[in-house]
Amino acid sequence: MRNDKRREDILRAAIFRNGEIVVDLLPEPKPGPGQVLVKTLACGICGSDLHARKYAHRMVELTRHFPGRKPMDLTRDVVFGHEFCCEILDYGPGTARKLKAGTRVCSLPALLTPDGPQGIGYSNDNVGGYAERMLLSEALLLEVPNGLAAEHAALTEPLAVGIHAVAKANVRGDEVPLVIGCGPVGLAVIAALKLKGMHPIVAADYSPARRALAQRLGADIVVDPSRMQPYATWAEHAAMPPEQKAARPPLLARLPALKPALIFECVGIPGLLQQVFEGAPRDARIVVVGVCMETDRSEPMLGIMKELNVQYVLGYAADEFAQALRLIAEGQVDAASLVSATVGIDGVAAAFADLANPERHTKIIVEPWR
Amino acid sequence: MRNDKRREDILRAAIFRNGEIVVDLLPEPKPGPGQVLVKTLACGICGSDLHARKYAHRMVELTRHFPGRKPMDLTRDVVFGHEFCCEILDYGPGTARKLKAGTRVCSLPALLTPDGPQGIGYSNDNVGGYAERMLLSEALLLEVPNGLAAEHAALTEPLAVGIHAVAKANVRGDEVPLVIGCGPVGLAVIAALKLKGMHPIVAADYSPARRALAQRLGADIVVDPSRMQPYATWAEHAAMPPEQKAARPPLLARLPALKPALIFECVGIPGLLQQVFEGAPRDARIVVVGVCMETDRSEPMLGIMKELNVQYVLGYAADEFAQALRLIAEGQVDAASLVSATVGIDGVAAAFADLANPERHTKIIVEPWR
Repeated sequence: MRNDKRREDILRAAIFRNGEIVVDLLPEPKPGPGQVLVKTLACGICGSDLHARKYAHRMVELTRHFPGRKPMDLTRDVVFGHEFCCEILDYGPGTARKLKAGTRVCSLPALLTPDGPQGIGYSNDNVGGYAERMLLSEALLLEVPNGLAAEHAALTEPLAVGIHAVAKANVRGDEVPLVIGCGPVGLAVIAALKLKGMHPIVAADYSPARRALAQRLGADIVVDPSRMQPYATWAEHAAMPPEQKAARPPLLARLPALKPALIFECVGIPGLLQQVFEGAPRDARIVVVGVCMETDRSEPMLGIMKELNVQYVLGYAADEFAQALRLIAEGQVDAASLVSATVGIDGVAAAFADLANPERHTKIIVEPWR
Repeated sequence: MRNDKRREDILRAAIFRNGEIVVDLLPEPKPGPGQVLVKTLACGICGSDLHARKYAHRMVELTRHFPGRKPMDLTRDVVFGHEFCCEILDYGPGTARKLKAGTRVCSLPALLTPDGPQGIGYSNDNVGGYAERMLLSEALLLEVPNGLAAEHAALTEPLAVGIHAVAKANVRGDEVPLVIGCGPVGLAVIAALKLKGMHPIVAADYSPARRALAQRLGADIVVDPSRMQPYATWAEHAAMPPEQKAARPPLLARLPALKPALIFECVGIPGLLQQVFEGAPRDARIVVVGVCMETDRSEPMLGIMKELNVQYVLGYAADEFAQALRLIAEGQVDAASLVSATVGIDGVAAAFADLANPERHTKIIVEPWR
């Protein structure tokens, strides 16, 4: 069934080893029961991968709070990469094989094993998408609709993050959203808010290139925080209609008459949540999508006096992931605009460094077959 | 209309002055338009008052984030006391005077003035309940139902805090609540959860006396954190029914099968929220009712990986306040059990110190007329 000229049993990968990204050969994994061997066509580099490289020990430490999860052993190799689009090569035992070899597929970054589900991308056991080939679970495969480029199908995962974050926000429809940070996660949130029909969407980022992308994906107002306070701009666009303002009880007369605030924190660095606490209006709901791996400090009194709500989110559900692929394939989200470069396995280490410049890059796609 | 033998124009009060509580005479305030002069019958000492004495400068600093609020001037006198039951003495101009002099009333701790609503209890301008007399607004008066003792009616305010916290939690009914800290606020939360029909209610406190009170107010299971991990005890009582467990998707098979967690943080010291983050199960909702006035540190990654929700709450709405008074008057909440002592104005300073011992005291009521 194999349709690929490849060196049997050996694959090339960009490997996280001793804190660095290095290129080396690894043994090809064998698909177990219910599993599929696939060729990696495209895999996005995620901000979490950059974080994981820098804070790998923190990640391991934090995993100890979750008895079900197996922490990475940092003395052993890890192949990152959890935003992938692949092509089916070979099936393992106990598979239904409904999709032919050569079919392009996406999957949640999880592998169903006899010991239960395991992660793909931050695991010593399961090779991630920065490798020529990897294993997936047949039960989790989603066929890529005809014609969608692999590099765009690989954006399913980050878009699913945005869809999930907006779903967890329990949007009622009367909120005015403010998105802080327009990296891939912030842009995915903006796209998901637009699909929900939210208007106006306010978004803030220091980078002109990122603000332009935010507008392209659905932001109605963009703010440069070095020139304008994002919360002030937000408030200008969130004024309560006069009849609603007039209906408020007299005890609330001193409070500003604003529509409900829904703030998405899409940066993930220490101090950011405190900034949101300072800027947020009373009763704001804050969705923390940015992944901050360091200890953070905040003034709980601000949260208390404003009665803020903070919803931390991570990942997505299987149906949200499938929805994301469908939305990209139907052209409802302009995924193509996010891709700023493609590299081969040899370019991964440099791409990690390049992603530090938000003017030049949003999403770099690894094509391990190059 | 005056029915009280009192020195005209002068009243005694326990005053917050230069960081200490001192007893002194103050000029009697004159009721303005819509206002009422009342005799303070009973006023509870709140944990916030103890905090305010210790962290008054922080409170002033934090108020600067709220342009509508007037911060305390700490070079001037402040009379604390916002949990009061009073008796009507005299009406100001422009009042309807539906309640006769001598009627016992409660009120939200707010004064409606020509400049808008102002707080009572942390204000240089408005005397709080640790004084023989004070001003209230006619529009906010609630008549105390016949026969309810003033010292129990004064518990309306702390009970309203619990009712509000539970209301903000948006209880669906399938959650198992865990109350961390059984001081007056935690006890009010337990009472409010019981009234909602929640079962079982798990509550944790280091003090045997507080745990006994928690049971009296509705806790089904109480935990001593020095002997048992409250989250482990909670989990024992939150097991998901087998049919619900069986219906979960395979990807979730590794997660513990628990009912939704609803955790009330009723302590309000730094580090407590981080402890909750560590102990909380996945998807827990946390309501922060404890008032922590210091800077706090936490690991956002725990919140992220568990997708926690944190709802900060403060105070109550007017209808929640009225409901609290009704519930106490109807005997639906055993308010009497909370009162551990009554003191006169001369006893306030000592009472502040005594409240440090949770075995001896829960709520001390000031009776300024004594």
